[in-house]
Amino acid sequence: MDLKPTTPEPLILQVLGRKVTPRPPVWFMRQAGRYLPEYRALREKAGDFMSMCFNPEMAAEITLQPMRRFPFDVAILFADILLIPQALGQAVWFEAGEGPRLGPLPSIESLRAHLDSAEQHLAPIGETVRRVRAELEPERGLIGFAGGPWTVATYMIEGRSSDRVAARTYAFKEPEALDALLDVLVESTARYLIMQAKAGAQVLKLFESWAENLPEDVFERIVIGPHRRVIELVRAAGITVPFIGFPRGGGALVEGYVERTGVDGVALDVQAPADLGRRLQKKVAIQGVLDPLLLRAGGSALDRRVDQLLEQWSDGPYIFNLGHGIILDTPIAHVEQVLARVTGYSRP
Amino acid sequence: MDLKPTTPEPLILQVLGRKVTPRPPVWFMRQAGRYLPEYRALREKAGDFMSMCFNPEMAAEITLQPMRRFPFDVAILFADILLIPQALGQAVWFEAGEGPRLGPLPSIESLRAHLDSAEQHLAPIGETVRRVRAELEPERGLIGFAGGPWTVATYMIEGRSSDRVAARTYAFKEPEALDALLDVLVESTARYLIMQAKAGAQVLKLFESWAENLPEDVFERIVIGPHRRVIELVRAAGITVPFIGFPRGGGALVEGYVERTGVDGVALDVQAPADLGRRLQKKVAIQGVLDPLLLRAGGSALDRRVDQLLEQWSDGPYIFNLGHGIILDTPIAHVEQVLARVTGYSRP
Repeated sequence: MDLKPTTPEPLILQVLGRKVTPRPPVWFMRQAGRYLPEYRALREKAGDFMSMCFNPEMAAEITLQPMRRFPFDVAILFADILLIPQALGQAVWFEAGEGPRLGPLPSIESLRAHLDSAEQHLAPIGETVRRVRAELEPERGLIGFAGGPWTVATYMIEGRSSDRVAARTYAFKEPEALDALLDVLVESTARYLIMQAKAGAQVLKLFESWAENLPEDVFERIVIGPHRRVIELVRAAGITVPFIGFPRGGGALVEGYVERTGVDGVALDVQAPADLGRRLQKKVAIQGVLDPLLLRAGGSALDRRVDQLLEQWSDGPYIFNLGHGIILDTPIAHVEQVLARVTGYSRP
Repeated sequence: MDLKPTTPEPLILQVLGRKVTPRPPVWFMRQAGRYLPEYRALREKAGDFMSMCFNPEMAAEITLQPMRRFPFDVAILFADILLIPQALGQAVWFEAGEGPRLGPLPSIESLRAHLDSAEQHLAPIGETVRRVRAELEPERGLIGFAGGPWTVATYMIEGRSSDRVAARTYAFKEPEALDALLDVLVESTARYLIMQAKAGAQVLKLFESWAENLPEDVFERIVIGPHRRVIELVRAAGITVPFIGFPRGGGALVEGYVERTGVDGVALDVQAPADLGRRLQKKVAIQGVLDPLLLRAGGSALDRRVDQLLEQWSDGPYIFNLGHGIILDTPIAHVEQVLARVTGYSRP
């Protein structure tokens, strides 16, 4: 007779383990953030954005805010993909209303020399994960994350949000230099994610926000390869938590991405066709793809699209989510509207 | 005994008719334009950009400039996708260095009332086509074109180049108004393309530059549907010239686009995987996908990629091209380098 107490396994872990669940788990990219009045209130009291990320008490509170207000099944660590370049010695700051700014790209030797100190620098993020996991109900999952090495590299090369023309040109003109930069980022990202998993993150997600507009051979080299190597390094450390990859804008290249990276789940963007999702579900769990513009617009068109997504993908492993981050002026009522529909759904 | 003179059929027409040719025909998007010193010289003497489009002598000269300098197999009419909104009564002008600007969106009734006068307004474009066709060697093809109705609508709604957030929101919040606008554009575009074909255009191309970031159901409604209706209207007028569609950024949605629009060829963007192209070649000719950033970067990486594209797709109907327009500071020598490689190729 087995007397172990039955711990409820978070829905997202069931789905990533390819179990059939009564309904898909649901969370929203950027669910902790500026569309929430309680976030904006905290933000006013806080210092700059980077300090918030490095303050475990505050970052844990922000992570938990949407979990208190909404029936999300999953929390995602409040942090930023640019913590790694900062930890590796490149200056990173945020200009109000303009997004991130980065100082000059350090030499590859300098970046490499920071690999050990970067782990220490990022230790407060582990503390945030521990605090969130301690407060979160056991049936709700917790996702840790990092940026995809290519996306992080685009910011490091260009010094800001951009059209990535300089970074993509660098990929063509300085392939060895880019590969060396990606190698350092792979190593640093793997260490960072291992730390998050040890602190209690139950799923790890790689946000490759700028996977769009890359030729197939370049995508293979700078997106698929580095993701596979990050996952291999994390697995080599004995960490078995599932990975979700998000090659945003990867289009028809996403199938090769799923086959060759070792991800357990793939986040799809707003464009992903129903058929592509069904093909991918034979191999991994899929996540997505509600358009944040439709979430903001609301109305019966929103209900119809939610129903359509539930219908087309709920037979397989599916995590309901947006196809991109929530927009800051999205009405709270629209979030509630979608969550009621998804949590009230049951597979036919 | 057949005594008809054998007219050499342009390679592009052979490929669009699914014949096997010794090598793929080649042309470049924006091959007539600012990277050419002779274009810049003419541009300085000319008035504003829109006047150049409406001056048949000048527009024909610009169309022919790259044909004199390079061994391109195909010429493409020099014109702009915003001639249609102007012809329908919306103000269109170009701000130096900033791109197009449009006045307020006219009412749907006003746009409809301009359908007949728009045809007259656009008559000079037909004259440009006639002049080019008269000067161009018979073995070189001539492409006429228009913007995809959705892309043209995004400019009409937003008044300028943008992230299309307002237009995409309009698609969700005002679906009937958008459908009515697209209907007028379908009608006007079909009439415009019929006129171009009658004037001598041998291929018609629909540039849907902003097909990216659309959910599958929206893409079906605002891209696939309008393209199919344009083609049906052109066919109903007895015009049989082949169509190339370019749903740029359409990713995995391109397969459905090919199946349901009636295009004879599809232009792919830089991202298109080899496998997707080969699947599409079973149904239509494909065109693309060299990255203009690699063309500008040059070097041996450019040669390798050209060889790779020729190898992966030359067994089927393939038109060699870029995956996006040529960039204005592209060295002429790089264009020559690629053209020598493609025109010197023969299928194994």
